[in-house]
Parts: sequence; C-alpha cells; structure tokens
Amino acid sequence: MRTRMLRPAAVATIALALTAGGAAGWAATADLTGHGDARRISGDQTRQLRQQLVGGHARNVILLVGDGMGDSEITVARNYALGAAGRFAGIDALPLTGQYTTYALDKADGKPDYVTDSAASGTAWATGTKSYNGAVSVDVTGAPQRTILELARANGLRTGNVTTAEIQDATPAVLASHVTSRSCYGPVATTKTCPTNALENGGLGSISEQILATRADVTLGGGAKSFGETAVAGAWAGKTLLQQAQARGYQVVTDEEGLKKVRSADQQRPVLGLFASGNLPVRWTGPLATRTGGSEPAVRCTPNPAYGSAPTLAELTAKAIDLLDEPRARKGFFLQVEGASIDKQDHAANPCGQIGETVDLDEAVQVALAFAKKHRDTLVVVTADHAHFEPDRVRRLDDARPDPHADHGRRQEHDRGVRHLGGGRLAAAHRQPAPRRRVRAVAANVVGLTDQTDLFFTMRDALRLDPKARPR
Amino acid sequence: MRTRMLRPAAVATIALALTAGGAAGWAATADLTGHGDARRISGDQTRQLRQQLVGGHARNVILLVGDGMGDSEITVARNYALGAAGRFAGIDALPLTGQYTTYALDKADGKPDYVTDSAASGTAWATGTKSYNGAVSVDVTGAPQRTILELARANGLRTGNVTTAEIQDATPAVLASHVTSRSCYGPVATTKTCPTNALENGGLGSISEQILATRADVTLGGGAKSFGETAVAGAWAGKTLLQQAQARGYQVVTDEEGLKKVRSADQQRPVLGLFASGNLPVRWTGPLATRTGGSEPAVRCTPNPAYGSAPTLAELTAKAIDLLDEPRARKGFFLQVEGASIDKQDHAANPCGQIGETVDLDEAVQVALAFAKKHRDTLVVVTADHAHFEPDRVRRLDDARPDPHADHGRRQEHDRGVRHLGGGRLAAAHRQPAPRRRVRAVAANVVGLTDQTDLFFTMRDALRLDPKARPR
Repeated sequence: MRTRMLRPAAVATIALALTAGGAAGWAATADLTGHGDARRISGDQTRQLRQQLVGGHARNVILLVGDGMGDSEITVARNYALGAAGRFAGIDALPLTGQYTTYALDKADGKPDYVTDSAASGTAWATGTKSYNGAVSVDVTGAPQRTILELARANGLRTGNVTTAEIQDATPAVLASHVTSRSCYGPVATTKTCPTNALENGGLGSISEQILATRADVTLGGGAKSFGETAVAGAWAGKTLLQQAQARGYQVVTDEEGLKKVRSADQQRPVLGLFASGNLPVRWTGPLATRTGGSEPAVRCTPNPAYGSAPTLAELTAKAIDLLDEPRARKGFFLQVEGASIDKQDHAANPCGQIGETVDLDEAVQVALAFAKKHRDTLVVVTADHAHFEPDRVRRLDDARPDPHADHGRRQEHDRGVRHLGGGRLAAAHRQPAPRRRVRAVAANVVGLTDQTDLFFTMRDALRLDPKARPR
Repeated sequence: MRTRMLRPAAVATIALALTAGGAAGWAATADLTGHGDARRISGDQTRQLRQQLVGGHARNVILLVGDGMGDSEITVARNYALGAAGRFAGIDALPLTGQYTTYALDKADGKPDYVTDSAASGTAWATGTKSYNGAVSVDVTGAPQRTILELARANGLRTGNVTTAEIQDATPAVLASHVTSRSCYGPVATTKTCPTNALENGGLGSISEQILATRADVTLGGGAKSFGETAVAGAWAGKTLLQQAQARGYQVVTDEEGLKKVRSADQQRPVLGLFASGNLPVRWTGPLATRTGGSEPAVRCTPNPAYGSAPTLAELTAKAIDLLDEPRARKGFFLQVEGASIDKQDHAANPCGQIGETVDLDEAVQVALAFAKKHRDTLVVVTADHAHFEPDRVRRLDDARPDPHADHGRRQEHDRGVRHLGGGRLAAAHRQPAPRRRVRAVAANVVGLTDQTDLFFTMRDALRLDPKARPR
C-alpha cells in the first residue's frame, strides 16, 4: 500500500536517499565550485513573492508540524538525504518564511519559561493562549481554552488530526482535549495525575476520552494501548475506551488495509485509526550517537525493519485529505499533521531515526502542497514547535536566565541534555487562487518575527471562524 | 562620546538591559497569561508586507552581519536583554525573513563541507563563489574572486567596511583581500602560510596590504598590530604597513576622539580606524559557562570595564554612514558592518560576552534602519554567517556525513566543541520609496530558502553594479 499511495516525487526522495546515501541529489553531481554555481534563485523575486501575498481567507488549512524540527534538524536531514545544495521538495518549497517565539509560562507566576515543551508549545497555536509546560490546552490556572480544531468543527468545517506519535501525545492532544498534565492519556493516569479533569470528579475526562468526545472527522496515529483502559464514570463507565469508540459510531481501523477500506468520514461515522500500541515506528534506523562516535567508522542509515505495515505520514496525510475534502460542501476543512519523532529521536541521540523522520514529514508536506496546487483556496503552514540546543557548558544568569551554554530556564530535559530553545521556523504557502475566486489566505502572517499564539489567530481568521460559534 | 553618539533608542535598550537585567522589557510587566496576550501581530499582514515588496534597485546597501548569530543566539539575547516576549528594535524589526544555506566546499574535491567557517561563509556572499574553509575570497583553486566591495567601488559607489574584530579577521577581510588562508594578516604570516599571495612572489600581498590597496573609503575596526609589520617587497618595502597607509593618503585614527575629528572620507583621503591592537573588547562581561554552572548561583552581566574608550558598533556604523552618504553624489554606497564577537564569545562559552555583543549589533541595526527610514532608497540586510550546534554525542554517517549529534563533516572546531551548523537567518528591510523615486531594492530575495551566494547577486543587482566595470 505504501508504494502505491506515495506520489512519485516522494518515492524518488526516499529512493535517492537510501540507495545513494549522502551522495544523492543534484548537489553531488553538479559542480559547485564556480561563480554563481550554488545559487538557489535567479533575478528579482519580488514579482513571484507578491503573487504569494494574496491575503484574505482560505477554505482549507493544512498545518504540518515537525516536532523539534529547528533549522539545524532541517539542515542535517537535507545534507544527508539530498546533499547540502539540495532542496526538500516539500519543506524547502514554501515561499514565505519567518520565525516565531516558543516560550512557555511558569505556572506559579505566569512569567516566561524559556524552555518550552510540546504541550505548552502546541497549546499556544492550538488555542492562542500561552501556558505552562505540560499543559494541554488549559491556561496557567488550568482552565480549558477552546482549540482551533474545536472552533473549526463548531463553524461547520471538517476536521482532521494526524500524527506519527500516540494520538494522546502532546501535539495531537492539544487539538482535541484539555487536561492539566500531558501524561493523562487514559482514565487511570487521569484519576491519579489530573484529578480535576477526571470524569468521576465532574471533569472532561482523560485525553483519550476527550478525543472521542471532540469527534474530529479523522484522527490517525498510534496510541491504541490507552483504548484498552476502562472508563470509571460517565455514560460509558465499565466499558473500554475502544468499546466506547465503537458505540459512539467511530470507524476504528488498526492497519493499512483497514484504512484503505474506509470510504468516508463524517460526524456520523468518524474515523479513528490506531496503527500502533504506542508511537508509530521510525522510518530509518542506525547506531546511536555516542561520545566517541566521531572517531568511529561512518555508517549509513537503513530502512527500519520494524516499520512493518504501518502507513507512512504521507499516506496518512493523503488519506486524511481525501476523506476531509468534500468539494460540494459549503465549507472546507482544518487538518493538522505531525511528524512527531524528529524530536523524540533527537532526544534519543539517534541521527538516522531523526533524519528519516524529517524525510517522512517532507513527503507529507509534498502531499499537502500537491493538494494545494489543485485547490488554491488552501493555506499550507509548515512549522516546528521548538528548536534544540545541547549545551556542553552552562551558566545561570539572573533568576535562572538562560544563555547558549546555560540550563535554559527552570526546567531540565529528561534525557540526554538536549534542550528546547530557539524560535521555530515557520513557513507558509498559499497559491494565488484562480481569477474568479477571491478566496485568499493570510500566508503573509508567518513572515518576520511572530509568536506561536499568532498562528492560532492567523488560521482562525484565514478560515473565517466565528469564535463564538456553539459546538455542534 | 559613546553616549552622545548613541541614538536614544539604543541607549534605552542598553539601559533597560543593564539596570533591570532579565526582568527588563514589556514582557515582564505585561500579563501574558490571557487569550491572545502574547501576540506580536494583529490582523492580516498582507498589505503591510506587500508594501515592503517593492523590487527593483537601491542606491545604498547596508549589510549587517552577526557572526555566528543563529536563531538560538538571537533568542537567548532577547530573553536576557528584553524578556522572551520582547522584541529587538533592530534585528526583530526587519519585515522580510528567510534562511540560507552556509556550507563550504572541500578544497580537495570541491564537494560540500557541511561545517563552514567565517572565511568560506563570507567569501560566499562577498563574491558569489563557494570556497573552502579558510579561503578569503579565492575559489577552491586559490584564484581571486572579485568582491561586492571591489565591484561597488569600480562602479563609482562609496564603500565601507566596519567590524568589532581585527579588520584582517575573516568577515571584513573577504571584502577587500584575496588570500589562500585567513591567517595571513601581515607579511610575516603570508610569507610562511600563503606563499602564492606573498608580494615577494608576485602575489597581491597580505590581508592588511590588500586592504590598503583596495582602498575602501572607510575601514573601521581593530587589528592595529599587523600594521606594525614591515613590507618585504613592493613599492613600500622596508616600511611598516602603518607608514604605508599614511604614505598612501589614509587618515589613520586610533580612538574615539580621532574618529570624531574626521570630517570626510573619499578616495583621496580614505579613513582607516584601528581602535585596538587585536579585536575590540566586548561590551558585557560575566563568568564563563562550565559543566557545573547550571547548579551554581545565577549571575548578572555587567559592563566590561576593559571597554575603555573604544567606540561601540553603533557609533562606528553611524560615523561610517555619515562619511559615506553624499546626497549630491550620483551614486550611493555599500557598507558592511560586522558584530564579530557573538561567534567568538559563543566559542569561548562566555554567555554575557555573547549576549552583550548581540545587543551591540542590534544597536547598529537600529542606526542602519533609522538611516533607511530617512533615505528610502537604502536596502538593509541583517544576517549571520552561520549558526551553532554543540553536540554532546556524535556519529559519523556515510563519508563523514553529519547529523545533529555528529562531528558535522570533515572539520573539527578548535575550541569547546561548538560547531557551525544550520542555515543563517537572513532578514531585509527596504522602505517603500517616496512616490516620485522609483528606486527600489530586491528585499524579497531574502525570503524562503536561498544560499549565501545568492546574497552577492541580490546586492549586486540591487545596486545595479556592472560586473565588468574596471577598477578605479
């Protein structure tokens, strides 16, 4: 299924990278040594760029998130997969680029916490509200904040949520749930860690239960394990979350073949795809980095044999778009797609894993751009939720103020010393619509320096969502 | 003099940062906890951005380079000096933003070397030609490549070269000299390390000697030491380079008072300002980062007492612009301004030094933007020559292919493990000209993904420089 669903360009990217290794791409064959040989553009780009700046509104928004995909992560992946002078057909093709600030807030005093995590980060663009690390679409007081997906749904748009992680992981969770701690995947953890959110205490329930209640038309990723837990309160008390999903009309699929058979997804029959017990496997594999790895023989990345029959992110994206796009409907769709394991493999010091996931996301971006090319009323945004820094030496400044060699604020990362720091790269594409449509989108809003919370308003306004619309 | 020359806004930035430390700026006083509180923009930015996209040509180009100033360096400096929600009045104010690739070439095979240095990096934008690490405006074969400053001068523009480093350091050197190794500051090193460039062998001479021969109207920075060396061949054999400079008509100044007295700079009487024996001192000081610094008490940055009477970069920039701008002249000017020690202090693991130098550069950017606001036919570009990464664990991929935890190619850095990686941030501003001037600049060319060599062509074409113009 994978090969069939992948568009030729995406296949070519992968084939190129895996068969030719770092020598792939035109960079290695073209002579870069002469005057002007390395140029990526020619002439004045003003006209082309002005054509991208059409402003106004969009029928559809596709937001693609490379978790932890800072410029360094993009650069190393490009270097390895395409050569330094290469160009990702997806990520590097978006015409409008900028940076945004990603800081979180301290729960105690509401002041900036420089080291964000994916929960606070995702909450910012999902709701327009800054919050603390670990917060899933609640503010610093724990109060739920309405999400862009909920708002899109309330306004009659179709909605989708796709990830290579567990669907309860922070980045997908922020679209469809509101809990005080990102670890509250199911009823057990919620009772213990997020008591104010527990159903038995009158809360909205665990992340998994809220995902079912929010009822996006399409939810695809990993995270089947939590659906084996049993609800302890509410209408489905005593039933597993999987039974609940089925009772509530979800089409539950667990593999490529099952997904292939799904022909439609809507509020009567939404799709819940759970393709792994936990996170989806990574695409590429290779030895971990070590303190002495620089003097060891060079290695090549290889396809991950554990990948099995899991669909690629490009396949999931293509299927989600196919299910969400309804040309005859009055309104369009909102879709978020996350390449989750760029960050996870960065923290694991697994270069092949990390690079392969960036290539995986790029394929998904290519799918989104191909759709936008045919449906020019679509705004495509590609971003990271944060960058990384790995300080070898540290120094605390003022009241734990960070610096490039410091502990970067109040929170220590849980793993190999990698910190989240730096503005996320933000890129957007919106094709000029056909002359008779003046349906336009505010891709200009990603250029320059913005904040993550700006992205919420950019998407909300591009889709002309009424912030007061009542949930369906 | 420093206080008098600084514009109020620049003074305010510094005062804010030094008196209130990390708690300065509106971020710390404003409440960021509510919905939309952290936004940096409001509404659709399309119209504002379109107004920035005027295309065409420019009378003046001011290029400001923060050496090693990647997004992480900008972020930590913003966090400390202005608060995370703050905004640099210069660096963050440029409306058009993008990334460019910074890779160097391997001298042996002409293929990409992922870890660039400031010499190869500067050579790329100065000449439009990629080269090897250590190359100063020569290609991989060692052949001189014409620089944007030389081209501007040949086309009748006035030219300036300002840095906080030694004027022979890589970033200023690439504008005015051509040597096979960046270390060839004076005749002694050139005889030994760059024999093909040595005057006694028929070459163009050391970097210092070529700076004199290239004859920019204004050259300001450190590096007086090399001018004490004696020429070993050519018309000034037996004379020190300082004597040569004076004999060739240069106005040589060595302190603020001397610079203040300079009233004009032109080809008859160009200005050579040498304000330190080596690099200029850094603005701020504080304890170095260490492996255990994260658990030590937090510190504050303080003004560097060694700064003495050295002019700030903003002062040097203001003076250079003042000397170069000649409203009655038919043609404008090209000026490069480098904040050199951001990189040097990053490598030294000196957070206060690094942050203070970023603030120092921001003040210079403010001066450039203030000029451009009054002289709307000026293109201002702010960029870094590379970013940094500091891998704790490494793994070599393929033929020394890098990854985020790897040794990043064929070259090991000389110091504390910090590597150059990642695309440089690139930002440009060009105000819409007054209606009667249609003098316009291609600021659009920095948006999206470009290469460093593209910047050469962008500046060349913005200034309408004839690439075949003969040297004056």
